[in-house]
Amino acid sequence: MTDGLGERELQALIERIVDEVRPEAANGKVADYIPALAKVDARKLGMAITTVDGLRLSAGDAHEPFSLQSITKVFTLTLALELTGAELWKRVGREPSGTPFNSLVQLEYERGIPRNPLINAGALVVTDAIVDAVKDRAAAQAIVEFLRVCADNPAIEIDEDVAQSEKAWGSRNAALANLIKAFGNIRSPVDQVLDAYFHQCAIAMSCADLSRAVLFLAGGGRDPLTGRKFISAQRTRRINAIMLTCGHYDASGDFAFRVGLPAKSGVGGGIVAVVPGRMGLAVWSPALSPQGNSLAGTLALEKFAAASGCSIFS
Amino acid sequence: MTDGLGERELQALIERIVDEVRPEAANGKVADYIPALAKVDARKLGMAITTVDGLRLSAGDAHEPFSLQSITKVFTLTLALELTGAELWKRVGREPSGTPFNSLVQLEYERGIPRNPLINAGALVVTDAIVDAVKDRAAAQAIVEFLRVCADNPAIEIDEDVAQSEKAWGSRNAALANLIKAFGNIRSPVDQVLDAYFHQCAIAMSCADLSRAVLFLAGGGRDPLTGRKFISAQRTRRINAIMLTCGHYDASGDFAFRVGLPAKSGVGGGIVAVVPGRMGLAVWSPALSPQGNSLAGTLALEKFAAASGCSIFS
Amino acid sequence: MTDGLGERELQALIERIVDEVRPEAANGKVADYIPALAKVDARKLGMAITTVDGLRLSAGDAHEPFSLQSITKVFTLTLALELTGAELWKRVGREPSGTPFNSLVQLEYERGIPRNPLINAGALVVTDAIVDAVKDRAAAQAIVEFLRVCADNPAIEIDEDVAQSEKAWGSRNAALANLIKAFGNIRSPVDQVLDAYFHQCAIAMSCADLSRAVLFLAGGGRDPLTGRKFISAQRTRRINAIMLTCGHYDASGDFAFRVGLPAKSGVGGGIVAVVPGRMGLAVWSPALSPQGNSLAGTLALEKFAAASGCSIFS
Amino acid sequence: MTDGLGERELQALIERIVDEVRPEAANGKVADYIPALAKVDARKLGMAITTVDGLRLSAGDAHEPFSLQSITKVFTLTLALELTGAELWKRVGREPSGTPFNSLVQLEYERGIPRNPLINAGALVVTDAIVDAVKDRAAAQAIVEFLRVCADNPAIEIDEDVAQSEKAWGSRNAALANLIKAFGNIRSPVDQVLDAYFHQCAIAMSCADLSRAVLFLAGGGRDPLTGRKFISAQRTRRINAIMLTCGHYDASGDFAFRVGLPAKSGVGGGIVAVVPGRMGLAVWSPALSPQGNSLAGTLALEKFAAASGCSIFS
Repeated sequence: MTDGLGERELQALIERIVDEVRPEAANGKVADYIPALAKVDARKLGMAITTVDGLRLSAGDAHEPFSLQSITKVFTLTLALELTGAELWKRVGREPSGTPFNSLVQLEYERGIPRNPLINAGALVVTDAIVDAVKDRAAAQAIVEFLRVCADNPAIEIDEDVAQSEKAWGSRNAALANLIKAFGNIRSPVDQVLDAYFHQCAIAMSCADLSRAVLFLAGGGRDPLTGRKFISAQRTRRINAIMLTCGHYDASGDFAFRVGLPAKSGVGGGIVAVVPGRMGLAVWSPALSPQGNSLAGTLALEKFAAASGCSIFS
Repeated sequence: MTDGLGERELQALIERIVDEVRPEAANGKVADYIPALAKVDARKLGMAITTVDGLRLSAGDAHEPFSLQSITKVFTLTLALELTGAELWKRVGREPSGTPFNSLVQLEYERGIPRNPLINAGALVVTDAIVDAVKDRAAAQAIVEFLRVCADNPAIEIDEDVAQSEKAWGSRNAALANLIKAFGNIRSPVDQVLDAYFHQCAIAMSCADLSRAVLFLAGGGRDPLTGRKFISAQRTRRINAIMLTCGHYDASGDFAFRVGLPAKSGVGGGIVAVVPGRMGLAVWSPALSPQGNSLAGTLALEKFAAASGCSIFS
Repeated sequence: MTDGLGERELQALIERIVDEVRPEAANGKVADYIPALAKVDARKLGMAITTVDGLRLSAGDAHEPFSLQSITKVFTLTLALELTGAELWKRVGREPSGTPFNSLVQLEYERGIPRNPLINAGALVVTDAIVDAVKDRAAAQAIVEFLRVCADNPAIEIDEDVAQSEKAWGSRNAALANLIKAFGNIRSPVDQVLDAYFHQCAIAMSCADLSRAVLFLAGGGRDPLTGRKFISAQRTRRINAIMLTCGHYDASGDFAFRVGLPAKSGVGGGIVAVVPGRMGLAVWSPALSPQGNSLAGTLALEKFAAASGCSIFS
Repeated sequence: MTDGLGERELQALIERIVDEVRPEAANGKVADYIPALAKVDARKLGMAITTVDGLRLSAGDAHEPFSLQSITKVFTLTLALELTGAELWKRVGREPSGTPFNSLVQLEYERGIPRNPLINAGALVVTDAIVDAVKDRAAAQAIVEFLRVCADNPAIEIDEDVAQSEKAWGSRNAALANLIKAFGNIRSPVDQVLDAYFHQCAIAMSCADLSRAVLFLAGGGRDPLTGRKFISAQRTRRINAIMLTCGHYDASGDFAFRVGLPAKSGVGGGIVAVVPGRMGLAVWSPALSPQGNSLAGTLALEKFAAASGCSIFS
């Protein structure tokens, strides 16, 4: 498997890690910007692996669904690229956002072109591209269906409570969408784009499903278990590169420094990661760092990369 | 070698690439912010490889020394970490700088803590750490000696003309250094730090030497040819991660997207890159993109990574 | 009157000024951000005076109504202060905005507290305060009624075409309002506040009416012609001070430098000015400077202040 | 005098004000960025008036010299305008700086053109203009001589201890000067400009002298007591306008709102103010607000303007 670790060792490794990182959650804070997230139990902790040769391992609360939040952005980016092609890169950049002062500032300076597709502003443009491309049906529905295919699980659903909570507390995202619209980089009505955006954030999945869903990014764009081709090898490398440089907001550099894997976090406390050529990974622990990334989740991935030697930088 | 490419194929590959990317230089502009760089011939183009098993290949002007400029920052970071340890990370961050509006703005917001060690502000702090640590002798001398050891070539020298030119036109770097000093994050006298900084920028090396010098970052911190240990495997991964996320200023995300290798560019037109576990690489072509990175050099590395399959993201 | 200028001299002065500044409009550009403004005739030019002793003079197109746009902000500030008192200053500052990079950036840094009530962000908060205070009726209606009283003219109306055009092209204002809402500094529903805001911008008045409406700011808060008290003398001084420091967006300093009178411009091409103790003034010429202020209007006021010696700085 | 206040009433007024504002100093903090200022007694408090008809009144510590610091900027601006003319306005703006994030940020965005001559960056450009114009002798000497003439007091001197302390702790100003140099807006060597700048900041004067020195700005550019003409009436209005909009850093709007007089503060705790047509004023109390303006001094001027009715906005 990874540098000679077999199934038993891997299973033991993730169980040990789950034990070791549990106390870290005490240093963080569950997201409270929407009521539906604030009530999640801070002690939840899960970890799961799906390898390219079909091994599926898990530890802790790895089978309990949680709110994906920004993690969905990796999948909507993939879907939008397939639907609309490289033209998308004229509407959104691929540079780290770099500033803690949130993307409204940068949007203003860069005239409505978001820095990358993994920050909220960029994901709004990506969502608009999907809204535009699937005209006949709801964009949120297209996105959840894509996730079902990726995870090979038709039971994946949107948590409508969370979606409504997002909408009720979504003034900042509404500000972003309106500003992008003012610069002409959102084409559909703002309300429609926001609705699709809030619903995609509210998709719920378990670590087990998530590590499975991301497997095509470890397989050069092809799901190694079903053989289904999602995207080209080149596009796969590029999505992995964007996850590495932009996947953790203003702590992306630190995550690369500590963990060394392409990954994307969400304020629901999940992180999905890719070991190219080897496996998909997912962790979940709701207590967040000030930058909005799962504390215990990051530590779990750091320990896993160190113990398994799977960093892309060695 | 790299996915089965043998010596002959690799040699043919880099020769072909050098031919193919040559026209790209016409789209760029040789750095003219100091007279000593402006006079470099824009048609120069070289490429070199040194593999962990000792193969040394080159094409074009790969044996002609050029001004390293910011490329040195990778080596001064390594040296400073060895001299002063992890305490350095209290004085400099490891996040991409993200803004095209140059680092003075960010320094102000973040109160004198540069975003990362590969931008000028960060390298000034790194240089100050070296000045502080080598008290008894000149910091610039310590740096050039470290590069000689890395490259296994005692003939490497500072180009004093370039150093003087840097100093004469160095108002912006003087502004940075004074601002950092105002925040208390430079300890030695500003003039001394600037002198060491300007001299390290002026070190001249060839592609052949440079690909050799960076080999320890492909070898887990150990020079695979001499066996000499430079830094730990963990620190090696971390330096590679910083190169990936921060090595090309405000085009670092784009470089990761296109090439997918840890690398560092300099306004002299050089780029050094690392294929972990496999090789060091260097290219040189003086015509730059608006962000200050070698145009033909970037394209050469993009082609090399695609043809050899050595991206860290696949 | 003003330093000894009698009625005849004043009338001759403003007629001469209207003639002299007419060519200046050729250097500017009629606002085109909403279709309803773009169709205004760039050659329109009017000027009017109402003195504290009841003299009413005018020249050019001084009796033709035009869209007040941001000029209304002076009156909504007055109304909001009367309705809600000094508590308003906890929700909006009184400093010049200073940056050409538009107020979204500043709102972000200063966490939803607009710099002053005469920029769009500040006027949205002021409007929200009025919406809150007049609960039982429409805020826009309360504002237009206040302007009728100020101008002593019951015929003043909102131009509904302009209001609808504002709404259709109001993405940037919607972005501002949503961002302020995200920081908790807008209390009523964003749509309701925006509706009141767009309608107040669309109030139409002539120079003659406008110079009359502002007279209470020249009279220490009391309308010198009707004797009606609007606000205290202290609050009058303060509103005049804010007009001086903040009345012309990022060209407020330049306007103070050239003209030296408290004044407020609108992108409809109007400017209202106050000579404390003496008169209200209004000019209208639709061609704007890059900062959004009437070119010929500013020049007219500069010439008037110089000729009449009425600058507050001498 | 001022709205009918005679000598006795004025004297009683300033004595009463000095008593009333004394406790306010407890809420502020003496400047401690250089040791030479930090040792000043926080309980010092003085106030002085010089009227255009020659009345000279004072209260408290009005005859004790203190460090002018930024107050000198008003006089160096006057001197530079006389030496170099309106061409100076191509090198420095006249807009409020607006941002609490200090002028380095703005300098960067606006490519080395400081926002106005009363912030440090602008005063460095003004100083460079003087250095350039007085080539044969020291700029600092020219400035102190100008102040002697303005104050009609040949005994005014530079406090060399303060000047040396400024220099030793002047990294931020060195950063500003080097950044402006990098943009080509400083012509003489940076060290020479900084030396002149640090020395002008260190000029010491009493409230009595200072209220006398600024009298020409109340007299339309002419010293009403000696008849000596300093600058034109138009330039006088303009300098007063700049003091009003830019004289108190990021609290300029608030000062205009509360006091309503052209004025300039210094971190030595002094404030100089002008009542056009009537008088020069000076106050001194070393305890500062967070924005760097004298707390008791501002309150004293607010009380004086309210009691005497001399605000320019009424």
